[in-house]
Amino acid sequence: MPDDLPHTLHHPAPDEIQLPPVLHALSDPQRLHIVRELAASAEPRACGSIDLDVAKSTMTHHYRVLREAGVIRQERVGTTKLTALRREDIDQRFPGLLDAVLGSPVPA
Amino acid sequence: MPDDLPHTLHHPAPDEIQLPPVLHALSDPQRLHIVRELAASAEPRACGSIDLDVAKSTMTHHYRVLREAGVIRQERVGTTKLTALRREDIDQRFPGLLDAVLGSPVPA
Repeated sequence: MPDDLPHTLHHPAPDEIQLPPVLHALSDPQRLHIVRELAASAEPRACGSIDLDVAKSTMTHHYRVLREAGVIRQERVGTTKLTALRREDIDQRFPGLLDAVLGSPVPA
Repeated sequence: MPDDLPHTLHHPAPDEIQLPPVLHALSDPQRLHIVRELAASAEPRACGSIDLDVAKSTMTHHYRVLREAGVIRQERVGTTKLTALRREDIDQRFPGLLDAVLGSPVPA
């Protein structure tokens, strides 16, 4: 299992992704902002490249909540982490959910 | 404003309903159960009529989170509260969201 490697972060398998943690992960305006940015990006993004006006520890927390829920995939590359939306996994598991969330008005 | 009446509960107006609190309200398995039951019911339900194996105070909390987010409408009728899903309001504000949530596999 790749998860045994010390530098590999844990990600739930597609069929382990559960609705309540996904909804919880999406229920925060800052995490929603991250997800919108990732959805608009063709390539994985370096974490620091998405602007969030919060402390680094808060940012790390938000990424962890999204990753553990199965919403994003994070990969360590050298000293940075590349982040991508698990669009296919979420779409397959919860059809229409991401489209509805991403199509909704951005909170003021 | 009807909300000035002591026995009327506060509900956000349709255009005040925000995505993060709605997703938060839906992110709990017990609250999801309430929403699924309400969605399956043609008539408003009395709170006690939906089985949740939790303390009454927890149940009251769950209903309040759902109501304050704009997911359900609660109306005091005599000594009971009748509860209904605000299906039209949520569908209009976040098209496809409730369909995606209600169509998703029930957590084990």
